[in-house]
Amino acid sequence: MRLARFDGGRLGVVTDGGIADITALCGCDPQEWPAMGMVRLIRDFPDLRGRIEAALPALPLTPLDQVRLETPVPWPNKVIAYPVNYHAHGREMQAQYRATNQGFFLKPNSSLSGPADPVVLPAVPGREVHHESELAIIIGKECRGVSRDDWRDVVFGYACLLDMVVRGREERVFRKAYDSFCPVGPWIVTADAVPDPAQLDMKLWVNGDLRQSANTRDLVLDIPGMVATASAVMTLYPGDIIATGTPEGVGPVVDGDRIRIVIDHVGEMNVDVVQGELGMTEVFAESYVPQIVKQH
Amino acid sequence: MRLARFDGGRLGVVTDGGIADITALCGCDPQEWPAMGMVRLIRDFPDLRGRIEAALPALPLTPLDQVRLETPVPWPNKVIAYPVNYHAHGREMQAQYRATNQGFFLKPNSSLSGPADPVVLPAVPGREVHHESELAIIIGKECRGVSRDDWRDVVFGYACLLDMVVRGREERVFRKAYDSFCPVGPWIVTADAVPDPAQLDMKLWVNGDLRQSANTRDLVLDIPGMVATASAVMTLYPGDIIATGTPEGVGPVVDGDRIRIVIDHVGEMNVDVVQGELGMTEVFAESYVPQIVKQH
Repeated sequence: MRLARFDGGRLGVVTDGGIADITALCGCDPQEWPAMGMVRLIRDFPDLRGRIEAALPALPLTPLDQVRLETPVPWPNKVIAYPVNYHAHGREMQAQYRATNQGFFLKPNSSLSGPADPVVLPAVPGREVHHESELAIIIGKECRGVSRDDWRDVVFGYACLLDMVVRGREERVFRKAYDSFCPVGPWIVTADAVPDPAQLDMKLWVNGDLRQSANTRDLVLDIPGMVATASAVMTLYPGDIIATGTPEGVGPVVDGDRIRIVIDHVGEMNVDVVQGELGMTEVFAESYVPQIVKQH
Repeated sequence: MRLARFDGGRLGVVTDGGIADITALCGCDPQEWPAMGMVRLIRDFPDLRGRIEAALPALPLTPLDQVRLETPVPWPNKVIAYPVNYHAHGREMQAQYRATNQGFFLKPNSSLSGPADPVVLPAVPGREVHHESELAIIIGKECRGVSRDDWRDVVFGYACLLDMVVRGREERVFRKAYDSFCPVGPWIVTADAVPDPAQLDMKLWVNGDLRQSANTRDLVLDIPGMVATASAVMTLYPGDIIATGTPEGVGPVVDGDRIRIVIDHVGEMNVDVVQGELGMTEVFAESYVPQIVKQH
């Protein structure tokens, strides 16, 4: 099943014939602030799924091009991200570490954006902003200490994710935290609809030029390992997002570009890149010549 | 005014005579999941404050030792943290950078705990867990691009915060992300009750031994700079927490220790340290000899 948020916090099921509105069926108030409808839908999905499937045949369908899709989980408990998790990307970044010996970092909820939202480049002169294509894991249950063998029990589904970053040597989280630097979507595909998440082709184009092409079989720390590592440290909650890392081929985007990401069995997003006016800080203004290896 | 969460998600005002329950007055449902009552109270405080002050004289007071205080904002949009933000701490860590040229990192919401919750040490053999005493800033308004001059407009209040960390060379966020690694409390003091947040004495004891003693006047990146930097990058929301960095004197805690933090005009927390059973990951198991400077 494909679950989406759209048109101002409504919840929907995406079918081949269009999107069915399940906002009322889920007891979701689109005006709620902060918007927690999808987080509760994910928590309650084991009970709700039967009701949704029973209601679907009678629900009107709206063509996808007549709605505005939004980021599926706008205010999760956390967005976890694994750095340097494909060997070839590690080589291109000259990184001396991997997710297997570094662990994870975090992206802020405020960086989450949707498939219809542009990536807004900060006004940081002389810096490149790079695209990183990633498979997102969506957690389905509150859990801690999940073993590798039990990872499937707590994974709700998958989505496409772009982990945008200002290249430089400042704290990685800071350079990856800008508003709109974490497009997720176009929806969440529930885990049962993905035959094998460890065998997914993932491609990214900029203006039609193929920039990244990989398969999740090449992950360094695999999906069971990512779930086990995150839950060893933290309680995970329904709606938590794990960005699984990007393969080789990262590169800059500029004003006017269009980024396309496609992941088999998951979906496709086409995201515009625009130049913003905000984003300069005294951190970037300081001259900084660190004696550390290249970070990313 | 001192605002607290207590006894299973209730909201209260702490007075010298005890705590007054304002849960119903705020329209807060203690059973709500995720718990957003304090986030909405902060958003609505300009309208609610008058009603709270008018109701207070008639509300019954419960002695503080008869309630269980909880972390004030359990599920904010984000917890921002500034690294190496006191010069003397930078020297003790042999750090080659400061918050002024590194920016910020993030702590996960799931690491937030309250003044009555213990710090639970992960079962990570051979690693030290250190205390870091910090002043927390609580954001009051949705905002982006706040100038240094306007910082007071968006700061709601202050709290005590402990930024606990497993020392090592893995990703800093990962080592600081454990459940219970971010005690905040004992309540939020609204900004009007703190004469000058840039002149606050902050002290931390372990088992009665003074370990950290500093004043916020020694911050490298000051409070206006922290608000300006964070909001240059991210939209801030009511309830967002900024951990402002720790002064010199960090050090290990072990099972059975008791950490006491006191910040003038803000409050005091006494937090027990206990040994947990979870927390080991394959990340710590990997042998890792990085060629980078000491991180923290």
